[in-house]
Amino acid sequence: MEVDQVVPLPRLPRVAVCGGTHGNELSGVYLVRELLKLQREVMKKKQEEDSKPALVLLVLSNPRAMQQCRRYVDTDLNRCFTHATLNGPLSDMAPYEIIRARELNALLGPKGSPEAVDLVCDLHNTTANMGLCFIGYSDCDWICLHIFRHLQREMPDTPMRFLHFDVSNKESYSLDSVGKHGFAMEIGPQPHGVVRSNIYTAMKVGVQHMLDWVRLFNSGNVFEGGFVDVFTMVKHIDYPRDSETRNITAAIHPCLQDRDFCLLHPEDPLFQTFSGETVRYKGTEPLYPFFINECAYYEKGIALSLARKRRVTIPAIRVQTEQEQQANEQGFASEEEE
Amino acid sequence: MEVDQVVPLPRLPRVAVCGGTHGNELSGVYLVRELLKLQREVMKKKQEEDSKPALVLLVLSNPRAMQQCRRYVDTDLNRCFTHATLNGPLSDMAPYEIIRARELNALLGPKGSPEAVDLVCDLHNTTANMGLCFIGYSDCDWICLHIFRHLQREMPDTPMRFLHFDVSNKESYSLDSVGKHGFAMEIGPQPHGVVRSNIYTAMKVGVQHMLDWVRLFNSGNVFEGGFVDVFTMVKHIDYPRDSETRNITAAIHPCLQDRDFCLLHPEDPLFQTFSGETVRYKGTEPLYPFFINECAYYEKGIALSLARKRRVTIPAIRVQTEQEQQANEQGFASEEEE
Repeated sequence: MEVDQVVPLPRLPRVAVCGGTHGNELSGVYLVRELLKLQREVMKKKQEEDSKPALVLLVLSNPRAMQQCRRYVDTDLNRCFTHATLNGPLSDMAPYEIIRARELNALLGPKGSPEAVDLVCDLHNTTANMGLCFIGYSDCDWICLHIFRHLQREMPDTPMRFLHFDVSNKESYSLDSVGKHGFAMEIGPQPHGVVRSNIYTAMKVGVQHMLDWVRLFNSGNVFEGGFVDVFTMVKHIDYPRDSETRNITAAIHPCLQDRDFCLLHPEDPLFQTFSGETVRYKGTEPLYPFFINECAYYEKGIALSLARKRRVTIPAIRVQTEQEQQANEQGFASEEEE
Repeated sequence: MEVDQVVPLPRLPRVAVCGGTHGNELSGVYLVRELLKLQREVMKKKQEEDSKPALVLLVLSNPRAMQQCRRYVDTDLNRCFTHATLNGPLSDMAPYEIIRARELNALLGPKGSPEAVDLVCDLHNTTANMGLCFIGYSDCDWICLHIFRHLQREMPDTPMRFLHFDVSNKESYSLDSVGKHGFAMEIGPQPHGVVRSNIYTAMKVGVQHMLDWVRLFNSGNVFEGGFVDVFTMVKHIDYPRDSETRNITAAIHPCLQDRDFCLLHPEDPLFQTFSGETVRYKGTEPLYPFFINECAYYEKGIALSLARKRRVTIPAIRVQTEQEQQANEQGFASEEEE
């Protein structure tokens, strides 16, 4: 790949912004509600003017969980978007979230099909001190990486990282995987069930810049190549637990708490037990901790996750011309026929 | 009342420390579990030595809510300790927490009776930036005020306040009201469902100093009089809400967030709406805000509470002599007979 060469990529006519995939992560819930209100006003005005409304799909993903202000009702919705779960047999007793995942897949997908929306941005919060993170399954999705770099430039005061969950051995499972491109926008720290103005505003500004970028891209703007630091998830670490009760016996060490993305070295303090002892990091490689003390991960057995950082080169990109697009679609059609 | 005069008060032989009254406020849950473990070890040792074990009752108040990591299962346990709820008729369909409140009243009370434990310290967390707060129903319970002052002196680096919920017009409703003396020890900020080492340690040290004070008191120590600043709750303020959906339409203003106990003046920013406007405080009196953006109070319609501060003079105290105690008990008995 030559950085100088401008890579033409398909247009992104249909973008979805989703909130409330976890019903107690409130920034996305209130932001999508606010955007829906604005969209209704704009559409009313545009109808009067008889012009075409903007195609941003605004989705409240898990209304039942939102109503109860819980992460989920029966099972974690954001783990339900594998092909097996979306397409397997469905009993009458199916968990609410599996039914809802299929509704969302019908609305935004089907996952992996040419009908899927072009980009899904799924809004999340964390209790960890992670700033604004993009979380994606690919470290070579130029669309997501360019959007990320755009936000980094436009929001220089917001700590921002690109997190890559490598699922090359298994399948992507989250809502954003339903789109042709997709990422979770994860912002913290914010307690679940609480909305903090600063976090809400960072998300609102981030979504605005994301939509601005898509408009610029679709209208033919050329985005220059460059570099993005990508954090690739390596492993999770669980809390020390009582062997009988499985209750945790320690909390994140005060020296590690809130220090997401600060390099953790072998023998650095990791936990402080409830009786006061320090438990140290026994790994051999310095790695970057993140999702430190995320509330929802106690039940998943994750006290923190660790990542390796590397610099990814991204090419210059622009939207395909109509000719390129047609050639591309014919290629897709002939692939389909095979 | 003369400050110089030493007021003799009844011994405090039975102290209860309760955690998990709200099942997702984890400092108290893990602290009581840790203290139970230590107590089992000490009692085993003391049994071997054939000596009398210490009489600290350690209670996990709401095990079902703890198991689900929720505030409560059916209804807020910490609102169930009125005489009406504790003693009214009980149907088969009674909420779990009402049944549990009666069990706790049998264990620690009965509320208002001479059999009740002498002191209840009920452990809580808040998402608000409140430091360590004592919350009590009285501003003239010398025991609670002296314990508070002891902690203030022993933990000079911990922001600490005494909050007085004046229920002179209605009845106290919380678990700590079951003891002859009682207070909630409320520490934050900590997201519910999360345990942070610094908050856990502050609670652990606070409880240790509280128990130390009780031991000193019971062994005849004289505690000098002095002053305590008491914050008396004046009123609650709800979020701005949509008149139809009742959804909130604003969050705490970034200038107010985390500024618990910093004087709020008329026209200071109070909320920031989700569309970006500032809503200002329209009161006429400067007051002290607290429980700013407490997670559990969204459903109760409380965005923050406001208090007035005043300085309370507390007398010197000591434990009653055996003679004084006997005279006191005879007085109580004759009252009972009336």
